[in-house]
Amino acid sequence: MALRARALYDFNSENPGEVSVRENEILTLFSEQDIDGWFEGVNSKGERGLFPASYVEILRNDATSTYNNNSCNTSGEAYPDSPDNFSKPNPPAFSTFAVPVQPQQQHGYNQQSQGSDDDWDDDWDDNSTVADEPGTVGRYRNYEGNGSSTYSLSTTSNRGNAQGKSSATVSRNLNRFSTFVKSGGEAFVLGEASGFVKDGDKICVVMGHYGPEWQENPYPFSCAIDDPTKQTKFKGMKSYISYKLTPTHTQTQVNRRYKHFDWLYARLVEKFPVISVPHIPEKQATGRFEEDFISKRQKGLMWWMNHMTSHPVLARCDVFQHFLTCNSTDEKAWKQGKRKAEKDEMVGANFFLTISTPATPLDFQEVESKIDGFKTFTKRMDDSTLQLNATVNEFARKQISGFKKEYQRVGLSFKILSQAFEMDQQPYSSKLNQAISFTGDAYESIGEYFAEQPNKDLDPIMDLLALYQGHLANYPDIIHVQKGALTKVKESQKHVEEGKMDHSQAEGINERCNIISCATLAEIQHFHHIRVRDFKAQMQHHLQQQIAFFQKITSKLEEALLKYDNA
Amino acid sequence: MALRARALYDFNSENPGEVSVRENEILTLFSEQDIDGWFEGVNSKGERGLFPASYVEILRNDATSTYNNNSCNTSGEAYPDSPDNFSKPNPPAFSTFAVPVQPQQQHGYNQQSQGSDDDWDDDWDDNSTVADEPGTVGRYRNYEGNGSSTYSLSTTSNRGNAQGKSSATVSRNLNRFSTFVKSGGEAFVLGEASGFVKDGDKICVVMGHYGPEWQENPYPFSCAIDDPTKQTKFKGMKSYISYKLTPTHTQTQVNRRYKHFDWLYARLVEKFPVISVPHIPEKQATGRFEEDFISKRQKGLMWWMNHMTSHPVLARCDVFQHFLTCNSTDEKAWKQGKRKAEKDEMVGANFFLTISTPATPLDFQEVESKIDGFKTFTKRMDDSTLQLNATVNEFARKQISGFKKEYQRVGLSFKILSQAFEMDQQPYSSKLNQAISFTGDAYESIGEYFAEQPNKDLDPIMDLLALYQGHLANYPDIIHVQKGALTKVKESQKHVEEGKMDHSQAEGINERCNIISCATLAEIQHFHHIRVRDFKAQMQHHLQQQIAFFQKITSKLEEALLKYDNA
Repeated sequence: MALRARALYDFNSENPGEVSVRENEILTLFSEQDIDGWFEGVNSKGERGLFPASYVEILRNDATSTYNNNSCNTSGEAYPDSPDNFSKPNPPAFSTFAVPVQPQQQHGYNQQSQGSDDDWDDDWDDNSTVADEPGTVGRYRNYEGNGSSTYSLSTTSNRGNAQGKSSATVSRNLNRFSTFVKSGGEAFVLGEASGFVKDGDKICVVMGHYGPEWQENPYPFSCAIDDPTKQTKFKGMKSYISYKLTPTHTQTQVNRRYKHFDWLYARLVEKFPVISVPHIPEKQATGRFEEDFISKRQKGLMWWMNHMTSHPVLARCDVFQHFLTCNSTDEKAWKQGKRKAEKDEMVGANFFLTISTPATPLDFQEVESKIDGFKTFTKRMDDSTLQLNATVNEFARKQISGFKKEYQRVGLSFKILSQAFEMDQQPYSSKLNQAISFTGDAYESIGEYFAEQPNKDLDPIMDLLALYQGHLANYPDIIHVQKGALTKVKESQKHVEEGKMDHSQAEGINERCNIISCATLAEIQHFHHIRVRDFKAQMQHHLQQQIAFFQKITSKLEEALLKYDNA
Repeated sequence: MALRARALYDFNSENPGEVSVRENEILTLFSEQDIDGWFEGVNSKGERGLFPASYVEILRNDATSTYNNNSCNTSGEAYPDSPDNFSKPNPPAFSTFAVPVQPQQQHGYNQQSQGSDDDWDDDWDDNSTVADEPGTVGRYRNYEGNGSSTYSLSTTSNRGNAQGKSSATVSRNLNRFSTFVKSGGEAFVLGEASGFVKDGDKICVVMGHYGPEWQENPYPFSCAIDDPTKQTKFKGMKSYISYKLTPTHTQTQVNRRYKHFDWLYARLVEKFPVISVPHIPEKQATGRFEEDFISKRQKGLMWWMNHMTSHPVLARCDVFQHFLTCNSTDEKAWKQGKRKAEKDEMVGANFFLTISTPATPLDFQEVESKIDGFKTFTKRMDDSTLQLNATVNEFARKQISGFKKEYQRVGLSFKILSQAFEMDQQPYSSKLNQAISFTGDAYESIGEYFAEQPNKDLDPIMDLLALYQGHLANYPDIIHVQKGALTKVKESQKHVEEGKMDHSQAEGINERCNIISCATLAEIQHFHHIRVRDFKAQMQHHLQQQIAFFQKITSKLEEALLKYDNA
């Protein structure tokens, strides 16, 4: 007897090899064994293909069992009734499972297209990761942090959709505050963190010109991201994009998929509580293989990589180095490094143990003032980048539509005039007619130049702003960790005054708050450093591109003007 | 007992010194004698000032008499009931009387403002002109021709309002056809014109490279129009603008008002049936003393003057020379020349008597084909210039509004970003902040450049198009004269065949049709000649301006880029 299953939800096939199934549809399975979270089978219409294993329950001797077997969710309890509700649990074993559409995807783009993001497909070497267990901070932060701030800023198809971001930051901030302090900062400040710090894990904060700084990376490097290439699996039924990464310090190319970036990002967020981990480009459910999207994601990953390799701490950390250097074809080595990273003990509270600070402790009042100043700064920068993004977005849209149209209309009118003039039967005017016709073409071209230009000088600004919006979304959490530590210091002072705490205990809190403060200020200093670097470079790039653009227009017009010389 | 009058219509005062009156309002007059078409008096509110004499009837011994005394209209018969109907007769003695608003003013601008056009005021040396008598062709053509095609094309305040013109041309054309042929062309062809042609009046058509041409003006000249100056009369109560004209062949400055141009235009139209007299700039009821309007009218008059002095026949004709050379302060000389022009017998049908043609008569079939080709050409040119005008008009509007706004918004966003960055407390970023702020200012300036540009390179195109729209509106009439003559030739041939007409009579018709055809083709040739000259010059001017414009933008951006050098 054939193995049968019943669909629990509607599933709409989006990619070749998948079949759509309807809720309650009875399906025939080829095997009880899923392939990376997908069953292969035949639906009631006789269509053969893949569908998500977690969307069906296997029918066995009149008793049903859902596919979930190591999740704490049980069928009928956790699955909501409404198909519009996207909070269905992830399939237990796959952190990056394709379907259903994840909650953070609701904001940015078309909700109608409930497709699978192949980058979320799982082809890990094993089916369980430490980090993907429910309630893991890193994962949470990943979902929250990645989805909310960047996607709506830089997606070309979503120009002008950057509203409501600030409030999202605030709410995440509040959530994160309690979550984070409980799981890391507070524990450390209270002296509850413990672990063995290897020499290689040591992170130094040094006193620089403008206050605490991360010690510079003595071996700076960068990493190219090239050749996004479509790869297939399941005999071509499923596809994904692979990027070639070539770090300058190894000069050895490795292939990585978006989901590897995603995994790495989650590790980093989990490990470094007061470091602003750059957000990876947004996920996208549909159109993932379109050229525009691939090129856009590549650019986003390049920006991300630039910020990673520019960061003295992030650039050197083990998990990032593993990601950059592990041979893509050596599955065993990859698996080892992956497990090691996921089992890293020096994350969260313990990360602070690895930090060594300058000899002289900081003046907390000064620290507080600096942090408050930075808080005000980030708010202003957040507002102004949002506004700039909206303006630039609209400006790009106008150039692509209105500006182009206006110049091309003028061009067309000149063309029509030259065509009318061609009817004049006067041989002596033919050169003029040609010149006017050429002028019409020139305006047509200029219209095209306007439409092409945003890609060169406005999109990069929006990419930059998107990256910085990500950083700005990180800082409320970072600031709250430092503020939480400072509050503990004040509390401890009060407790000492009241005789409830002995001096040495308070001293310990002071010292640990100093570590957090040094790290926070070092991170802020780094932020300003790369901010000035990036905005300077980007403004220069923009102006250079604009100059080249207007020079191109001028040349075109000069070319047209020459045509009148003998007319 | 005071002299009293009753208002026949509402009159709204528009200028200092005027008083408003309501229909049926009883007014007190200071004198039965009007001052150039205006009565001075007191209205029922006790307000003292001027109002149009033709708007009131003087109350005398319970019998009323309207001011009109040499018009064929009688009160109550010709005056329509509806105040919206602008077809009220002109006051009898003043061809350029200010009120009511003339019929052709209905199309172009605000109909609510029924003001007086001071340029229509009369301060002629006498109150009756030959040409202003009812039914005079010249006058009719003046009104029709001037009002309909130019005003909506070039008026800055009426951008984008150039619809419906073509149909107006067609209808005028039909009217003109019968009117004109009856009053001139047909009479001449039928040999009914007669007059003494002085040697100085002789006009030669010669055979050129491309067919018949007007003999070139052996003494070419041009004429500058400068310094529009506001002048006053009636102790400052009424004002007008005076222009300084300096012809190159006399180098002697004369002062002329718009109404002098208007009078001259009427003389020319009346005199030259197959010459396309350039239209003078449109009349305007309100805002006549605003700088924009004055400058615009000056430009229009300069274009007009250019076309007048470029025309081999118009440039040399007596009335134009009188206009250009008669000392403005020598009222007697002016009056003499004026009367002479108005009594000129060589107008209309008689004008053709003054034309001498090349020895070899034209092939009428070839003429017909050329004329048909030109007719098609004018239709196409009319359509394409209308479209170009609408496009350029809209392009100018967009640059003044949308383009400016977009660039200035981007500029503002950069400014806001730089202001946010100034809160970063980092001394090393202050130069970047200044550079970004400067970039913001640069975009602000560029927005301004866009708004200023149309005045330099689009408005001149629209001025040119307006002038040519005027010519194109003239040509249907001109073509109809020639076609009418050709029809007479065909009819006469038929009549000869039928024995209804003798050979010599038909020969005469042939000869006279040859004269008309030579003149028409010469005029068409001249049109093409100046068209190629003007459009070439204007396109070059436009492109040069555009190039300078984009170079200015480039310079501004280069200036901004430099600011980042040490940032």
